[in-house]
Amino acid sequence: MPTQTDMKAAVQAYVDRFNAKDADGIMDLFAANAVIEDPVGSPLKSRAEFAEFVRRGVEFGASLNLSAPIRGSHGNFAAMVFTVTFTQGGKRITTNSADVMEFDDSGKIIAMKGFWGPDDVTGA
Amino acid sequence: MPTQTDMKAAVQAYVDRFNAKDADGIMDLFAANAVIEDPVGSPLKSRAEFAEFVRRGVEFGASLNLSAPIRGSHGNFAAMVFTVTFTQGGKRITTNSADVMEFDDSGKIIAMKGFWGPDDVTGA
Repeated sequence: MPTQTDMKAAVQAYVDRFNAKDADGIMDLFAANAVIEDPVGSPLKSRAEFAEFVRRGVEFGASLNLSAPIRGSHGNFAAMVFTVTFTQGGKRITTNSADVMEFDDSGKIIAMKGFWGPDDVTGA
Repeated sequence: MPTQTDMKAAVQAYVDRFNAKDADGIMDLFAANAVIEDPVGSPLKSRAEFAEFVRRGVEFGASLNLSAPIRGSHGNFAAMVFTVTFTQGGKRITTNSADVMEFDDSGKIIAMKGFWGPDDVTGA
């Protein structure tokens, strides 16, 4: 099982690589069989589907800012709360989100859930 | 399904009732068959076991402070990130946590997961 430090470093890398527009680096954090539910309540995405989502996020200039320190757990989960801002159709859109990431034994993200609702989006 | 507003109000009530030392009011937010995993990676608690956990939290003067706006979802989940501070054995202990709550159709909390690890506790 990855350590608390390992998992928090991976979550921080997810933020940093988005801000560095490093889509491949982001996807390196995910296991081949990762499943992503972002937002929670929407259809699950495979790793390949999520890679497209990330590619478009980078293209739209997505900028992530942590709102509080990353949280660990007593298992193989970590959580972060953040805002993500991007530009689409000339509009600057900000979403308040909280992401929960589950890790496999090798320290890759095996599952991610993004908690944000329609009311958590401003500027759209 | 409860609305985004309903779920966020319930999460806010969880915070406010802790700060008002209203243990019964906190438990009114939970369904009879609620399951609580707090912290994530520890054994699941039934509603009755969690009621004892809440009673002790109130006794230790637990004070909750939100670190960012409550997040909703596109389903029956909401999430919050907060610090909780309490006094035990003369020590003032603060935990950084993120809680995810799942709601049933009547708007009661049916499941709660608290994400915090050993490294997220200071002052112990």
